[in-house]
Amino acid sequence: MYAPSVDNLIVQLARLPGVGRRTAQRLAFHLLKASEADALALSDAIREVKERIGFCTECGNLAEEPLCTICADARRDRALICVVEDPSDLVALERTHEFRGLYHVLGGALSPIDGVDPEHLRIAELVARVERGGVAEVLLATNPTMTGEATAAYLADRLRDRTRVTRLASGLPVGGDLEYADEVTLGRALAGRREM
Amino acid sequence: MYAPSVDNLIVQLARLPGVGRRTAQRLAFHLLKASEADALALSDAIREVKERIGFCTECGNLAEEPLCTICADARRDRALICVVEDPSDLVALERTHEFRGLYHVLGGALSPIDGVDPEHLRIAELVARVERGGVAEVLLATNPTMTGEATAAYLADRLRDRTRVTRLASGLPVGGDLEYADEVTLGRALAGRREM
Repeated sequence: MYAPSVDNLIVQLARLPGVGRRTAQRLAFHLLKASEADALALSDAIREVKERIGFCTECGNLAEEPLCTICADARRDRALICVVEDPSDLVALERTHEFRGLYHVLGGALSPIDGVDPEHLRIAELVARVERGGVAEVLLATNPTMTGEATAAYLADRLRDRTRVTRLASGLPVGGDLEYADEVTLGRALAGRREM
Repeated sequence: MYAPSVDNLIVQLARLPGVGRRTAQRLAFHLLKASEADALALSDAIREVKERIGFCTECGNLAEEPLCTICADARRDRALICVVEDPSDLVALERTHEFRGLYHVLGGALSPIDGVDPEHLRIAELVARVERGGVAEVLLATNPTMTGEATAAYLADRLRDRTRVTRLASGLPVGGDLEYADEVTLGRALAGRREM
């Protein structure tokens, strides 16, 4: 029904995650109505990111050079590796300014139902990094979700004999309310209680 | 926290309607992970649509030429103009194969709260088309929503003295169930009952 170029744009937008045919159509019409400059700014941003950004050969983080800025930073503690699912998780941890080690970005979490098996994540690279030696601790910072927990359990099994393996604490979020906490979180907070 | 090109992509994606900062981040990471070919296919689709597609000078529909394929089609009935909010509504009507007249695309519906006043829609162009003469009927096919109904009422007031003005029937959708129909729809179906 539409001109071929409009149809093609709808098809390409519909390939984005969480974007169905109807949303893609709405986005396409938005771009058609938008000024030439605004629409091309998005087109160019996509092109530029693919031209400039790759993945760090060491940790899998986003990087403009072969090594990401963190791996290239000599002041970071190389004996401590924090394992995250995605670069956005790494950014969340960096915002705390509490972690001075290196990272390892898996590129997702294990989820056999979705066809994500160990060989689809950067797990072999993580084991190789640990086996190269000099790693005193691997901190597993995958999400506290079903798939994140399963990934953490799997990695702990693979790494436990080679180095110390720790996991981010689970419990009540700061500012949260006991009354509104779900049972699982509250159970974790109980199980993980600390001396004070 | 991200490289400038990644940040820019997130900003550009967040300007799309219904896309917040978090969704934009998720889409950006999807594009970063996607193959070069897939990501550039989207970039190119946006560029191509802006280069090729404009708006029909007569009706405001999407068009690769000055006139859209419908306005350029000599077999269409030029005495009948169907007014729609968006090109996607026009496509929905064309799918019925029941309408052989021309269209007029407003580019939205009146919504003073959102800052959409008559001068922001292609209403002056519609009045001019009717005033040029030869239009026996204007069929108002704006959406049966608050803004669509308000737009139809406004247009009917403007055009009633110049030509016959009709509105799409409102009532029970075919295949629908009386039991689950909302009161407004059912009320419309009652008010619009026909002899049989």
